[in-house]
Amino acid sequence: MLVQVAKDSDFTIHNLPWGIFSVPGESPRVGMAIGDQILDMVAVAELELFDFDVSVFYEDKLNPFIALGKSVTNKARTQVQGWLKSKDSPLAGKPELFVPQAEATMHLPISIGDYTDFYSSIEHATNVGRMFRDPENALLPNWRHLPVGYHGRSSSIIESGVPIRRPKGQTKPPTSDTPIYGPSKRLDFELEMGFVIGKDSELGQQVSTDEAEDYIFGLALFNDWSARDIQKWEYVPLGPFLGKSFASSLAPWIVTLEALEPFRTAGPAQDPAVLPYLASRGPANYNIQLEVGITPKNGTEQVVSRSNFGYMYWSMRQQLAHHTVNGCNVRVGDLMASGTISGKDESSYGSMLEISKGGKQPFPMNDGSTRSFLDDGDTVTMRGWGEAGDIRVGFGEVSAEILPASPE
Amino acid sequence: MLVQVAKDSDFTIHNLPWGIFSVPGESPRVGMAIGDQILDMVAVAELELFDFDVSVFYEDKLNPFIALGKSVTNKARTQVQGWLKSKDSPLAGKPELFVPQAEATMHLPISIGDYTDFYSSIEHATNVGRMFRDPENALLPNWRHLPVGYHGRSSSIIESGVPIRRPKGQTKPPTSDTPIYGPSKRLDFELEMGFVIGKDSELGQQVSTDEAEDYIFGLALFNDWSARDIQKWEYVPLGPFLGKSFASSLAPWIVTLEALEPFRTAGPAQDPAVLPYLASRGPANYNIQLEVGITPKNGTEQVVSRSNFGYMYWSMRQQLAHHTVNGCNVRVGDLMASGTISGKDESSYGSMLEISKGGKQPFPMNDGSTRSFLDDGDTVTMRGWGEAGDIRVGFGEVSAEILPASPE
Repeated sequence: MLVQVAKDSDFTIHNLPWGIFSVPGESPRVGMAIGDQILDMVAVAELELFDFDVSVFYEDKLNPFIALGKSVTNKARTQVQGWLKSKDSPLAGKPELFVPQAEATMHLPISIGDYTDFYSSIEHATNVGRMFRDPENALLPNWRHLPVGYHGRSSSIIESGVPIRRPKGQTKPPTSDTPIYGPSKRLDFELEMGFVIGKDSELGQQVSTDEAEDYIFGLALFNDWSARDIQKWEYVPLGPFLGKSFASSLAPWIVTLEALEPFRTAGPAQDPAVLPYLASRGPANYNIQLEVGITPKNGTEQVVSRSNFGYMYWSMRQQLAHHTVNGCNVRVGDLMASGTISGKDESSYGSMLEISKGGKQPFPMNDGSTRSFLDDGDTVTMRGWGEAGDIRVGFGEVSAEILPASPE
Repeated sequence: MLVQVAKDSDFTIHNLPWGIFSVPGESPRVGMAIGDQILDMVAVAELELFDFDVSVFYEDKLNPFIALGKSVTNKARTQVQGWLKSKDSPLAGKPELFVPQAEATMHLPISIGDYTDFYSSIEHATNVGRMFRDPENALLPNWRHLPVGYHGRSSSIIESGVPIRRPKGQTKPPTSDTPIYGPSKRLDFELEMGFVIGKDSELGQQVSTDEAEDYIFGLALFNDWSARDIQKWEYVPLGPFLGKSFASSLAPWIVTLEALEPFRTAGPAQDPAVLPYLASRGPANYNIQLEVGITPKNGTEQVVSRSNFGYMYWSMRQQLAHHTVNGCNVRVGDLMASGTISGKDESSYGSMLEISKGGKQPFPMNDGSTRSFLDDGDTVTMRGWGEAGDIRVGFGEVSAEILPASPE
């Protein structure tokens, strides 16, 4: 190995995720994470080892690289993997190809055309349905028949690390006859996994569950920040709007679908049986452990949730087949997210709304404070990783601090 | 006048809308409609009359031009207006600057980042609420307090003239206990007006109602095709998704907000009073007459609706102020649409859902057939124009034919 990789590193030789980084004085470019280093793909490109147009590595978004297609991008990753393993490789003895992650700035890795958010954890949908609607009929009649989803806002998807300003807006407290205006009092995170479309489909074309994985370039951690009080007042009948669109945070590293193969697992049994266009062969979920930590201002991090991407009722295959069943086209760089990933156990809930039971059971923090929702100054950090035998593949983290609402 | 303009032309000297056109053998570029001609802005650029970077006219989308800002784009329009009026102008005696519209192909004029659809006609919201939900409480409690909206799909917004494939998907007919898969049986149009964002805002910034018009470059006719049966089964709780995302049609010509000044009018009184962030000074609506025609295969067009953009309960100012109140940023080329524009009278309903009362009162066509929803082979054409004294400013049309669902 050309790079020493710690045993618990997210970025092992089995991973090699793609991202966009910069160092002072240089423009953003494509990089690959290995251990605590970044392999500078522009520097590698200049060694003239690749048989494709390497100008894609000089871009400040991954889209042009991804658009080359999996036959190119997977081969590039496999080639680098081989080189990193070998002392005789063309990368050997060239420390200038590597940049310490600690010295680099990470950027939003993709230019996102459309962003779609699903709602595919049955535990989350049940928990929310119980609180927002009817405790007796928490799951709506369509939920087990199709992966419910909605269009989200692309413009406000930002890179990990950018602080989140508490949004203002219109809410209607139960104690008030009329709506009021002001900062959200119920600011929340949503633990999600996003996937990045790697191949265009045509308008009118359906992508089948069998074909779907060809269209998925890779995955990244995603925090779909939510203002529950704004959402609750606005969302009937056309769905979430300003309660979500103030910001969503995307992790810097896109882990390829291929790197996740060791963690493939079957999802929950689907009952009733799905319509044929949603049927899918073999295991389509991924056993990725997830956790969420909250760090109060000047405090220490406390984990508030441990969940797993494998819990999803609807798989990415099914989400994509459903999304395109009406002929809707997808484009390279589109982002689709899972929806909040909750498990059965209370310790695995993926949002404060669920953890605090809508604010009725505030979560006790180590410093003696409690959280129903997020406080100003809180930093929320999400992590994810798969482990199978000796193989570990991690997602790094997506993290951001909550700033107070703007004064005026 | 350098160009003869018919009295009933949409594209008078008062209008001068922007679009993207091409002629055989030449690449798409920026043009301006005047009468039945297009002024080729690349040809004008080569006369070196402008004091800004004219490379924007060589682009195949209007975004780079729009991004120059209104101080540039309005001046350019006013300059051309002056030149077109004068026989001594630098455009005089140069017929090669003009291309007959009949010989040009029009293209999607903008690269759309995010697309937002509002729901701002009180008559439409009431009509739909009555049919989809509760006839006694058709208008939901939030409706008069905020301009309800939702995020739509950008990728499937296409140029006028491209046929629409009847979508397939999941529906649950009232006669069935379980959902079924197949072509939509309730394919509908929605008569809308879209507006194009002309200026970026920053994440965290609120655009006030006073500032909003600075952010609106122009308007275009928009048909937000809807599959009512797919929509009805999917839309609770997260809003419309596949019932809309199969296609939306945008007219080729973007009429500047400035060209619409003669038609400015007050909207309906808002009761109850809106929160201060939604309050707006002076008239903020536009008296634009609208009509929808259906032409059956091999038949003649029949007008099925006559409405008016002035009917909107919520103005564009209010929509934009609301959209950004939480800090959500907007970007040049974002599209926002009004939602279906219906009037009080049955002849002014902006969708077949309303015209046919959800299919209960099929609309009688001249050829003896009836329409509850759209048939394969129908062409739907929408038109819009303002008239004030001698001044006429029109939007051209947005039109598309319905093709049968794909066979397999």
